[in-house]
Amino acid sequence: HSRPRLGTHLGHNTNIRIKLPVVCFTWQIAMIILFGVFVRYDSESDAHWPETMIQNNITSNTENDFYYRYPSFQDVHVMIFVGFGFLMTFLKRYSFSAVGFNFLIASFGIQWALLMQGWFGSLDPSTGKILIGVENLINADFCVAGCLIAFGAVLGKVSPVQLLVMTLFGVTLFAVEEYIILELLHVKDAGGSMVIHAFGGYYGLTISRVLYRPRIHQSKHLQGSVYQSDVFAMIGTLFLWMFWPSFNSAIAYHGDGQHRAVINTYLCLAASVLTTVAISSLSQKTGKLDMVHIQNSTLAGGVALGTAAEFMVSPYGALIVGFLCGILSTMGYIFISPFLEKNLKIHDTCGIHNLHAMPGLIGGIVGAITAATANELDYGKQGLINTFGLTGKLQSRSPSTQGGYQAAGICVALAFGIVGGILRLPIWGDPADENCYDDEVYWEVPEEDEENPDSIPPILEYNNHMIHKQQEM
Amino acid sequence: HSRPRLGTHLGHNTNIRIKLPVVCFTWQIAMIILFGVFVRYDSESDAHWPETMIQNNITSNTENDFYYRYPSFQDVHVMIFVGFGFLMTFLKRYSFSAVGFNFLIASFGIQWALLMQGWFGSLDPSTGKILIGVENLINADFCVAGCLIAFGAVLGKVSPVQLLVMTLFGVTLFAVEEYIILELLHVKDAGGSMVIHAFGGYYGLTISRVLYRPRIHQSKHLQGSVYQSDVFAMIGTLFLWMFWPSFNSAIAYHGDGQHRAVINTYLCLAASVLTTVAISSLSQKTGKLDMVHIQNSTLAGGVALGTAAEFMVSPYGALIVGFLCGILSTMGYIFISPFLEKNLKIHDTCGIHNLHAMPGLIGGIVGAITAATANELDYGKQGLINTFGLTGKLQSRSPSTQGGYQAAGICVALAFGIVGGILRLPIWGDPADENCYDDEVYWEVPEEDEENPDSIPPILEYNNHMIHKQQEM
Amino acid sequence: HSRPRLGTHLGHNTNIRIKLPVVCFTWQIAMIILFGVFVRYDSESDAHWPETMIQNNITSNTENDFYYRYPSFQDVHVMIFVGFGFLMTFLKRYSFSAVGFNFLIASFGIQWALLMQGWFGSLDPSTGKILIGVENLINADFCVAGCLIAFGAVLGKVSPVQLLVMTLFGVTLFAVEEYIILELLHVKDAGGSMVIHAFGGYYGLTISRVLYRPRIHQSKHLQGSVYQSDVFAMIGTLFLWMFWPSFNSAIAYHGDGQHRAVINTYLCLAASVLTTVAISSLSQKTGKLDMVHIQNSTLAGGVALGTAAEFMVSPYGALIVGFLCGILSTMGYIFISPFLEKNLKIHDTCGIHNLHAMPGLIGGIVGAITAATANELDYGKQGLINTFGLTGKLQSRSPSTQGGYQAAGICVALAFGIVGGILRLPIWGDPADENCYDDEVYWEVPEEDEENPDSIPPILEYNNHMIHKQQEM
Repeated sequence: HSRPRLGTHLGHNTNIRIKLPVVCFTWQIAMIILFGVFVRYDSESDAHWPETMIQNNITSNTENDFYYRYPSFQDVHVMIFVGFGFLMTFLKRYSFSAVGFNFLIASFGIQWALLMQGWFGSLDPSTGKILIGVENLINADFCVAGCLIAFGAVLGKVSPVQLLVMTLFGVTLFAVEEYIILELLHVKDAGGSMVIHAFGGYYGLTISRVLYRPRIHQSKHLQGSVYQSDVFAMIGTLFLWMFWPSFNSAIAYHGDGQHRAVINTYLCLAASVLTTVAISSLSQKTGKLDMVHIQNSTLAGGVALGTAAEFMVSPYGALIVGFLCGILSTMGYIFISPFLEKNLKIHDTCGIHNLHAMPGLIGGIVGAITAATANELDYGKQGLINTFGLTGKLQSRSPSTQGGYQAAGICVALAFGIVGGILRLPIWGDPADENCYDDEVYWEVPEEDEENPDSIPPILEYNNHMIHKQQEM
Repeated sequence: HSRPRLGTHLGHNTNIRIKLPVVCFTWQIAMIILFGVFVRYDSESDAHWPETMIQNNITSNTENDFYYRYPSFQDVHVMIFVGFGFLMTFLKRYSFSAVGFNFLIASFGIQWALLMQGWFGSLDPSTGKILIGVENLINADFCVAGCLIAFGAVLGKVSPVQLLVMTLFGVTLFAVEEYIILELLHVKDAGGSMVIHAFGGYYGLTISRVLYRPRIHQSKHLQGSVYQSDVFAMIGTLFLWMFWPSFNSAIAYHGDGQHRAVINTYLCLAASVLTTVAISSLSQKTGKLDMVHIQNSTLAGGVALGTAAEFMVSPYGALIVGFLCGILSTMGYIFISPFLEKNLKIHDTCGIHNLHAMPGLIGGIVGAITAATANELDYGKQGLINTFGLTGKLQSRSPSTQGGYQAAGICVALAFGIVGGILRLPIWGDPADENCYDDEVYWEVPEEDEENPDSIPPILEYNNHMIHKQQEM
Repeated sequence: HSRPRLGTHLGHNTNIRIKLPVVCFTWQIAMIILFGVFVRYDSESDAHWPETMIQNNITSNTENDFYYRYPSFQDVHVMIFVGFGFLMTFLKRYSFSAVGFNFLIASFGIQWALLMQGWFGSLDPSTGKILIGVENLINADFCVAGCLIAFGAVLGKVSPVQLLVMTLFGVTLFAVEEYIILELLHVKDAGGSMVIHAFGGYYGLTISRVLYRPRIHQSKHLQGSVYQSDVFAMIGTLFLWMFWPSFNSAIAYHGDGQHRAVINTYLCLAASVLTTVAISSLSQKTGKLDMVHIQNSTLAGGVALGTAAEFMVSPYGALIVGFLCGILSTMGYIFISPFLEKNLKIHDTCGIHNLHAMPGLIGGIVGAITAATANELDYGKQGLINTFGLTGKLQSRSPSTQGGYQAAGICVALAFGIVGGILRLPIWGDPADENCYDDEVYWEVPEEDEENPDSIPPILEYNNHMIHKQQEM
């Protein structure tokens, strides 16, 4: 009853006792120093807020952005830590790593994201400080989502140290890509179809290609689910699904913008569920449903409405997007994932291609078309300005031009994802091929419950009894 | 180690490979068309909102109904998908179906509910369009709750196609019943004791009666829980319990109405827990607690305060309702459920009679009494008008008359539930008696974890060793 | 295949069939009577609110405190029932009790807390009534948190009746302690480092000392986790971690106070995760992570910022606190817990010393230092007044004096915790030493799944076949 000793195998040293603590300590200390130099409260979270209120003639604390965005922020926070974390617990012996490493890299990532996004977007020009408020927290969570998506592609095949490195680079790339798309091109992408999902998806797929393991089949016995792990994964699926309206509306324009983003996302996701179930049932000889599809493709609608959720796509438009994405994402699991593995040597543990990369691209296209066809009749004069932020020197930009910029945004996200992923991750503690998908490599896993009489089926005790009897004979 | 082949058995064809996709696709396409014809954004989610603000002299975006109701909406959303879904995972081999079919029918139901409730309640007379906002989303979730309650009665005994049909009819009936009760009779029922719980409960019980299976005992070995499935079910229980204050307050009157509904529900639920525990312990010879009671009857207080939560029932009034409902609901599980099965041939898998039907009736009665005894001293003049919506041609309706109408509402809900349930569900893919409560019928269930050495207790390996030794002898 | 009969053993009568129902009924009836005499709605939840609005010149319902605090309240509510409840499900056979008893004692505790805290803090002097609103609900949840912390120390070793007694005394002591600290000393402690965590921690540790069992090792085989139970516990950890910003901001000052408390807690918790992982990995020969640390010490930062979260600790200050607490808390699990058990006879099942008691003290100290160094430059004149509530007769209290009072608050919390815990809990149904950590004592536990063919590994069937064959020979 002893497991094969793990830790060193075929030159794979998975002992991370020095590397992991060193990385964690060094980086956390760096964060403290950089925050000390750069990060301060913004005017709405600073104790001088009462003075700001007087200066700006604000009469009620309800106008503090906190009350517009905090409920959505908390929903997004749940998506990042419980949603992504539990969605990946579906593997039979990798739940500790799924939820634990997700926890670790997100906790590092949000700190680094506050800095990177701050340098690019929230830097106070007069003081050189990054001023943070609740919207920065949401954006940091969003940024980390991109890295967690990439984690899904390599789940079970990399060490936590590699994941931290992947997050460091991922957040950095994300902040640059986001700056180019949202600030320089002035593209709208409140729910991040392009900036988060397409980028994160292709970043992860490229890394997975670089780290391709020809002998991964050696741990094939662990690359599947058991009954309970599939139920755990549904916790992740549902919290992602339920709170996706908050994801797509969290940083949308106050008032009708947030309101409309919620309605569109709600409808789009509902339609995804029905077509996912339909294709999943069709794909099996006996019409049985596949948990992998239900856990993932039901969410594709939320991804694909990330750009257009705050636009006037109209309720039936949202349903159409969800309808198509449920179909395409499920077919992705059936046809595209095997193709990618066999022909392009891209092994995608969670199928992020079908849940994030492809629906993210679709979302970018939907956004570009919707923006290009926007007009004053549908939006009203002020509504058009608010929705697309066409003020200042952008006030002369026409909707069709905006549509063109939206399309350009897709290309930027794609380029950053693919080029960014071609970093050779140093081989820091990754598991041997036959030890992939196994918590034992990085966690103290409890012994199974031998002393509990219930865990031994009665037939066994009978056997045992019989054997002894026979031996006595 | 092969399971009995399922799929066709005794004339039961559970192969849903054509039926399920056809229903999902057809209905989803119908939704898209109907939404295209009928559904538009309301003034608070439309991009013309800045103009509406000016026209109506609204100075702050915080007055957008979105900010009053969105946090409650998200809580309700969690109750529908995680609350109801996980509460039903208690069966040992039916967790995929519990959480997966709940997901499917709720996703269809909310779309159909937006249409049905829209035609009856939110139709813009000038344009003939349904205008939707966050309150419509909440009401759609509420409507679906009625169908999910009915699902609880037939859990494990019907196919997903039958469930979709049940939801189609259920939502339709619900919208008519709701229109009669809330609009025609002008009955108040913000948390839906009558409209949602009594209706849904009796609808499910009647369907279960119609579908009675005399040989259901053939799958008795699957009609129970295992240790882990009971813990999963507690996730559902707790999310329902914690967010029930949001359920009862989500569409209550702004300000004190929502505030009071939360306080009352919070207290009522707390009292339910103590009396449920007391009766559960009393009911067993050795005083041990029964998970079925804790998972369900602790919630009865929330159901029973659905009508009166926004009224001035006073904090101790809320405690009394919770006190009684904990007792009655638990005794329902002990005495009434066996009676219903034996004498009325109503087999109620989740005991919805005790959690929804009976407490829903009690809630209607509590509401009628509280309304009838309302007065200006307790409510204030404007408070009485706001709470009971007695404006326009209703301004002369007295509280005691309102009480009478409330009582009439109970009868309407009951009638719709019972009559509505007598629809013979076409026998579309329902499982054979011996295959009830089994995910294998409709899902690809993962093989158990044979290759994992931990899953085989060491004593077994010893046995095996002994046997081989003996054979050698 | 029969389990040892539990119930009476070595003089331990765990039959709670009379005691538990009697306590539940009596206390719940007492609550109803006391609520009837004392508890009424406050002005913001009373139906007279429209009149109050006119009297106080309030023009918008958004100014009702409900809309400032309800989202945070719901998050706190999740922490109390799912967070604490699931965090304690880590034991292999004590999940029913963990989540069920947590549910029971919290439901009783919040009612008693509303009364006790009301008598001390919300009593309307003119009418002698306790007027409750959403802030009272939050405070009741907070108060119960103290008792749930104490529950963690004795988890598995006491009966539900003892837990109810512990909660009755705990809430009572809490209310007095809170009154002294917050009202008499006017100490600020919005997130309760001292009032909740230090008090609850030492209260639990002292009770555990009093109830010390020298032969607890007899149930050592049950005092550990299994794979699934560790994943369940992570649900608790993550909901606590994600919603802790709401915990520390729920009753902070409107506007920048709540906003800042969220930012600080968010950052502090993120830093805790990295240093917890670092120390956990360092502590094992092979660098593997320990689930106990990840489940608990990652939360220490939230505890330690309970006092100072609303102060101007600055973002990097929050990171430093989290950095240190992750280290200290994890080292507590490695070094201090074994020391406490061996030398001081304090057996602490969940390690509340490391998660609550010690970080609570640190939080008090951080708060005292931050308060003492507060100045008008950092806070602004009005900001300083708002943050520390230095109005009326306190307006002349200087920050350094405030710092001294904060330090005094730590001592009061500590004293109440330790002295309060020395109550000899009557031996009401506690389990025998060899039956600790076992749900069987108090719950109807489902039989394991014998009839499911999947649960018997194929090798067994082969064995069986062989045996019969041999017998035939």
